[in-house]
Amino acid sequence: MINVTIWNEYVHEKIHDEVKAVYPDGLHKAIADGLAGESFAIRTATLDEPEHGLTDEVLNTTDVLIWWGHMAHERVSDEITAKVVRRVQQGMGFIVLHSGHFSKPFKALMGTSCDLKWREAGEQEIIWCVNPSHPIAEGIDSKIVLDHEEMYGEFFDIPTPDELVFVSNFEGGEVFRSGCTFRRGSGKIFYFRPGHETYPTYYKPEVLKVISNAVKWAYPAHNAQPVFGMSQPVRPFKEILV
Amino acid sequence: MINVTIWNEYVHEKIHDEVKAVYPDGLHKAIADGLAGESFAIRTATLDEPEHGLTDEVLNTTDVLIWWGHMAHERVSDEITAKVVRRVQQGMGFIVLHSGHFSKPFKALMGTSCDLKWREAGEQEIIWCVNPSHPIAEGIDSKIVLDHEEMYGEFFDIPTPDELVFVSNFEGGEVFRSGCTFRRGSGKIFYFRPGHETYPTYYKPEVLKVISNAVKWAYPAHNAQPVFGMSQPVRPFKEILV
Amino acid sequence: MINVTIWNEYVHEKIHDEVKAVYPDGLHKAIADGLAGESFAIRTATLDEPEHGLTDEVLNTTDVLIWWGHMAHERVSDEITAKVVRRVQQGMGFIVLHSGHFSKPFKALMGTSCDLKWREAGEQEIIWCVNPSHPIAEGIDSKIVLDHEEMYGEFFDIPTPDELVFVSNFEGGEVFRSGCTFRRGSGKIFYFRPGHETYPTYYKPEVLKVISNAVKWAYPAHNAQPVFGMSQPVRPFKEILV
Amino acid sequence: MINVTIWNEYVHEKIHDEVKAVYPDGLHKAIADGLAGESFAIRTATLDEPEHGLTDEVLNTTDVLIWWGHMAHERVSDEITAKVVRRVQQGMGFIVLHSGHFSKPFKALMGTSCDLKWREAGEQEIIWCVNPSHPIAEGIDSKIVLDHEEMYGEFFDIPTPDELVFVSNFEGGEVFRSGCTFRRGSGKIFYFRPGHETYPTYYKPEVLKVISNAVKWAYPAHNAQPVFGMSQPVRPFKEILV
Repeated sequence: MINVTIWNEYVHEKIHDEVKAVYPDGLHKAIADGLAGESFAIRTATLDEPEHGLTDEVLNTTDVLIWWGHMAHERVSDEITAKVVRRVQQGMGFIVLHSGHFSKPFKALMGTSCDLKWREAGEQEIIWCVNPSHPIAEGIDSKIVLDHEEMYGEFFDIPTPDELVFVSNFEGGEVFRSGCTFRRGSGKIFYFRPGHETYPTYYKPEVLKVISNAVKWAYPAHNAQPVFGMSQPVRPFKEILV
Repeated sequence: MINVTIWNEYVHEKIHDEVKAVYPDGLHKAIADGLAGESFAIRTATLDEPEHGLTDEVLNTTDVLIWWGHMAHERVSDEITAKVVRRVQQGMGFIVLHSGHFSKPFKALMGTSCDLKWREAGEQEIIWCVNPSHPIAEGIDSKIVLDHEEMYGEFFDIPTPDELVFVSNFEGGEVFRSGCTFRRGSGKIFYFRPGHETYPTYYKPEVLKVISNAVKWAYPAHNAQPVFGMSQPVRPFKEILV
Repeated sequence: MINVTIWNEYVHEKIHDEVKAVYPDGLHKAIADGLAGESFAIRTATLDEPEHGLTDEVLNTTDVLIWWGHMAHERVSDEITAKVVRRVQQGMGFIVLHSGHFSKPFKALMGTSCDLKWREAGEQEIIWCVNPSHPIAEGIDSKIVLDHEEMYGEFFDIPTPDELVFVSNFEGGEVFRSGCTFRRGSGKIFYFRPGHETYPTYYKPEVLKVISNAVKWAYPAHNAQPVFGMSQPVRPFKEILV
Repeated sequence: MINVTIWNEYVHEKIHDEVKAVYPDGLHKAIADGLAGESFAIRTATLDEPEHGLTDEVLNTTDVLIWWGHMAHERVSDEITAKVVRRVQQGMGFIVLHSGHFSKPFKALMGTSCDLKWREAGEQEIIWCVNPSHPIAEGIDSKIVLDHEEMYGEFFDIPTPDELVFVSNFEGGEVFRSGCTFRRGSGKIFYFRPGHETYPTYYKPEVLKVISNAVKWAYPAHNAQPVFGMSQPVRPFKEILV
């Protein structure tokens, strides 16, 4: 059983009618419902809860954290950001969706601006798999077609991903590295592009399948935690002290 | 249940007393015994069997192939080599051990000479994990100490590994990229350095644990097979034929 | 002064009127003319010359080899293929254009099928830079627009590139990793997608600029050649011989 | 002419006699002298200068910044740290030496703890080249032997380097990824391990040669600056606005 926490800023859905129409109970609820068939223990957390719903108790018992944010990135406190970053470095999986590219924890883990091109024009996105043996692509056909999505275009200012799993083609001519893995410390990170708040992207089975695969991939294995600091030699030798 | 085939050239163990003393029934038998506790269906195959034991039936029902060879690389037929390479590209996992770096299928999959420095002097090897969240390092401490091993030293002429999992320190001063992953087509490859035929390396629990982890990692998931060739557009446009 | 040899199979241009119309003296001549302003010493070589124009003398004095082939890959001899592969591994730069993805030396250096999707429909290709600090992208705007090109689509069956420099968007909906670097031995390889024989792609300044940048990037520096084989310890220790 | 600024916290050399004995005018002076033969315009800057010597004027006219710090990382202001990080993302080369692994700008650019194992015992370090065609290894033999150095050991908590150039072997049994490249935004970063303040490492020609090579590699080429934000389509299509 994998403990999954789905974090959503949950602001658009309360104040924008066109978003409420698509996700009446919030994006997090749609994703939680979509993952319900998996053997995940799912919790949700949102910005307006105390500590944004990410108390030490919640973070310390979360195996994989899913993150969606957009218009309220700056309202996430630096303290909670630092805790999320530290937990990822200690092994918690971290799945960052769509506009989460500009979230505080993702930017801190990347060390770059995470900026990109964008356009809201309801255009077609075709997501192609460029890594056919990757577990995050399991059960996914060679492509996923989304009839209407926001465009994100390169240059996407991230470090070179450890693995590139998906690349998108947009109707207006852009491309985007849409599925990217990164390792930071003992934690695994997956960025997945689709999911603008005005489109029913998170009801789409293939999109949910990718997120579900990513949860399993990002689950922290029982690997040894690295040991740091002053260290005795494994092999004796004649020390020369200054 | 993962179908594992352990291939060993099985020559040293028949003709060299010091090897026979360590691996009386062959290296493949020691590895097979060492993996017996896992839920693997294990077969072995050796050079002198018809088609080197790698008939179409065997290859087509093998999920992960483990390979050990040294003095008889050239006796592996080009036809069987081509079949192994094709099966890896189609998804079969491939775990190449120690002197298998010079085997025909590994060299064909790498596109490089796969050459290296070496020395048989019974020196200490310390294998360090440099990728603490990788599934191949699961359950492995920060290091594995082998009291006596053959030295392999850089430059190891392989393509840049997709992932570097282990790096070795040798008593005589060399380093070596000892645990390396590669993807070729739909297949996953893991090269693991230790295992000279005169040392009891393949009885060592940590070494067997790494091999076992690698089998699970290399197991082909049920991903879509890539489609190649002439392709209709996903999105209609006005064709301009020459 | 960089010694560049441009190899072209030079078959289409002799027998297909629509190709002859675009490249009357051969693709190699167009590329050679396009690079003439650089401080390169340029030679050309073609399939029908003795040893395909790639004699030992030519190969041994070539710093960077550019390769275009398509309909006659199988007519390149295995002997010349092996010599090209060896020279690349020893340091010669190798720039593989368009349908050269299926050439014998490129496939041997990759260890994969190098297969892909394709369509000849004169559609628009937009090549985006995803690596803005890479020397191969120097002087190139964020994108190159080619009004009419053959489509190549993912999955492109290559090993994960060491560096991804360009990604293409095609009008029909596909994407393609269009600019990829690889290192093999001491040699640097750049694959660059555009250049179907029926379009005037190799007269386009941005395309020529990329090829020119790649030549400079692939030029072999005066690095130490790796040393292989039996090796004395750098640091003395007590040997334990079997 | 490449504008190089060498930044040194310059504290040890003033207060520790054994450091003063090795670097009487500061580590920065030794490095500046060592690079004097190159066509670099070299400035130095230190912690105690106003704005740590890194005024906007200095940063904006620096092509490549070299950084050495150890005991006073926390005294570097957050404001100057942010400026250095931004300049790197905009293209300034950044060469981080030895204990600079724990400097504020390096940690911010990596997104990890950058922690490691260490031991001060004057042991031998042997630095091996694992990337023989990399420009940072130009003119360097297969190895560099440093008779006495501080040990740094894995796991080194950095993101997977874009390129691994050097790996160290330490007498006490450890290994370390000693030469690592990273790209962040438009900037190139090179981390180079050796250089403890009590050893004359920065007088060693091979060490200076690596630093000099790295300066040339990290020099920002005249690549197009990425464009971000709202973007018009390259290829017209029927917009569907919400």
